Amino acid sequence: MDIYQKSLKFHEELQGKIDINVKCKLDNKQDLSLAYTPGVAESCRQIYKNPDDVYKYTWKNNIVAVISDGTAVLGLGDIGPEAALPVMEGKAALFKKFADVNAIPIVLNTKNTDKIISTIKAIAPTFGGINLEDISAPRCVEIERILIEELDIPVFHDDQHGTAIVVTAAFVNSLKLVKKEPKDIKLVVSGTGAAGSSIIKMLYNFGIKNIYAFNINGILNKKYNDSYDFLNAEIADITNPDMLDISLAQAMEGADAFVGVSAPNVVNKAMVSSMAKNAIVFAMANPEPEISYDDAVSAGAVIVGTGRSDYPNQINNVLAFPGLFKGALQVRARKISEGMKLAAAIGIAKLAEDEGLSFYSVIPSAFNPKLADVVANEVAKKAVEEGLSRL
Amino acid sequence: MDIYQKSLKFHEELQGKIDINVKCKLDNKQDLSLAYTPGVAESCRQIYKNPDDVYKYTWKNNIVAVISDGTAVLGLGDIGPEAALPVMEGKAALFKKFADVNAIPIVLNTKNTDKIISTIKAIAPTFGGINLEDISAPRCVEIERILIEELDIPVFHDDQHGTAIVVTAAFVNSLKLVKKEPKDIKLVVSGTGAAGSSIIKMLYNFGIKNIYAFNINGILNKKYNDSYDFLNAEIADITNPDMLDISLAQAMEGADAFVGVSAPNVVNKAMVSSMAKNAIVFAMANPEPEISYDDAVSAGAVIVGTGRSDYPNQINNVLAFPGLFKGALQVRARKISEGMKLAAAIGIAKLAEDEGLSFYSVIPSAFNPKLADVVANEVAKKAVEEGLSRL
Repeated sequence: MDIYQKSLKFHEELQGKIDINVKCKLDNKQDLSLAYTPGVAESCRQIYKNPDDVYKYTWKNNIVAVISDGTAVLGLGDIGPEAALPVMEGKAALFKKFADVNAIPIVLNTKNTDKIISTIKAIAPTFGGINLEDISAPRCVEIERILIEELDIPVFHDDQHGTAIVVTAAFVNSLKLVKKEPKDIKLVVSGTGAAGSSIIKMLYNFGIKNIYAFNINGILNKKYNDSYDFLNAEIADITNPDMLDISLAQAMEGADAFVGVSAPNVVNKAMVSSMAKNAIVFAMANPEPEISYDDAVSAGAVIVGTGRSDYPNQINNVLAFPGLFKGALQVRARKISEGMKLAAAIGIAKLAEDEGLSFYSVIPSAFNPKLADVVANEVAKKAVEEGLSRL
Repeated sequence: MDIYQKSLKFHEELQGKIDINVKCKLDNKQDLSLAYTPGVAESCRQIYKNPDDVYKYTWKNNIVAVISDGTAVLGLGDIGPEAALPVMEGKAALFKKFADVNAIPIVLNTKNTDKIISTIKAIAPTFGGINLEDISAPRCVEIERILIEELDIPVFHDDQHGTAIVVTAAFVNSLKLVKKEPKDIKLVVSGTGAAGSSIIKMLYNFGIKNIYAFNINGILNKKYNDSYDFLNAEIADITNPDMLDISLAQAMEGADAFVGVSAPNVVNKAMVSSMAKNAIVFAMANPEPEISYDDAVSAGAVIVGTGRSDYPNQINNVLAFPGLFKGALQVRARKISEGMKLAAAIGIAKLAEDEGLSFYSVIPSAFNPKLADVVANEVAKKAVEEGLSRL
């Protein structure tokens, strides 16, 4: 049996990877009168007087909704809400396992942007945070932005920012290893969808200003902004400063770093060989990267990462989202800011240093038991600093 | 400390009465590849091909949403979604504790009937069933009806039908004890809101046709249907067959049974004394009943029940909803029908017989460990009979 058949059997036997646990005794009338009627009325009255007390008396202080409309699930595309549920359930399990954050899957029977937004706004009082997942671009960006603006709990689209945080962490450590400064390097990014656009913005904010961004139609160039969707126009605005019309191969000549969140095999060995000394390559198309780990190394890249678990430097967003939400929930944050995302990246980078930095481990193991708390501490501290905490 | 202060402290210490449990190992890359990517993709593909397989590979087969807009919470009224959350969380805990049914609370930030309906429709693919809770009447009836029509999973408003099922169970056994037939008895009901209207319909379907229904404006009479809301008009149509304009006291003269889901102290001892021999009184206003247990007994009623846990025959909907949903989920039911509700009542009544029937125990203990399974079996059997099962 291959991994797919094994996993199907595993799912059929489990019938659900998570379930509900009751934290209190409910064995007699006395127990019921405390946890339910009539006693529970007092918590209701307190929260009615002071709505923020909902964090004090309910699980709102530690519950995240993992929400998808099923339009961009794994590499499977628009498979609908029911078929997306196994992924969302898995994600909820990761939240609990990696950060002791409760999470439940919610799949939506609508692809309409306005209806998705109004549905999530309607159910939001239930949750301490909202993790959007597997919603197709560029709708995902619009949905996230409006929800961040209109809700007072963290809303975070993991496909955009999860990978971006981990890539930023990898850059923090990689640049340290190759002794280069963000402001001095030239970066080429292939892929300007949900993940690519967030990576570009985060690395731009981190200090890398010389960026060339490509999608399936070639290089982004602000000269052509009228023909782009809003997201690509935003990316064009902060990339390709000299408005060059060049190919991916041309852009890679002399580049210090390449980041791929696009398609298999769009990069060849000659392109990597043409990069600057001590080149960094993160090729994260899944399961087949833009260039294989072995080819990138043999073409001269010194730090190579992929999305695969069978090679060094696996760029895996499980490094980011559990600790990020844990930190946000700890301080009852009103949102997740750019500063908090960068703090998460710095936390991840620090832990890799603890583990011992090398070309083959610029990011820590996802199974490092300190991970979620290290990330959570950085994020919580930053939220308080920025005045985003309710505490 | 009184029960309210004790409960508040209990809630503050717990910070959530439920949490998430992960059912599978997630300790290494191998575990992740089974439960999450890449393996999970196979469950997605199977469900995409056959949407009903979502019951096979996810927790949809055993997860209920407990949903409220916070407009009619306990006796506290319209206190909003946050303040309703402790109750919904408690209800979710009861589902798990009493029937091993997973349930999560969802509170809604809208009171608009259409928005509530569209929100619940949007999140419905996530769940095996929907338990509506503490939504004000008559909106709750409209919301439930439309959702039952438009969704293919069980939708059940517990405040309407939970009490009705238990009251029906109590009537099954009470009439046996006093040796009367449903068709022969005269019933007076005080209260025609969510619970009262459902009780009247269920007892009518059970065979009691001579019913007099009262609300705060007096007896319902189909002569005046134009001035009633749709729910009261429906009740008027099946009650007060001779279209009498009489008082509650007049109606109770010679009545075999009284059911109260209205307000404290609307019935006095003289009214109970005027009832027929072997009178049955279920006075369920909470916490103060329509007439106290002691007064009803001393006035001559032979079977008396209230909503209170400190007297015999506590009419408590925890007897019904856990087993009802358990049975519906076991057969992946498309809805909960009138027949399934009656089956639940019969299951509850049977168990009281098992425990030993008497005037002081016409319904079983909520803590009888067989309860949920007995009810679930009856409900599941009926669902299959009626062609409402997916299996």
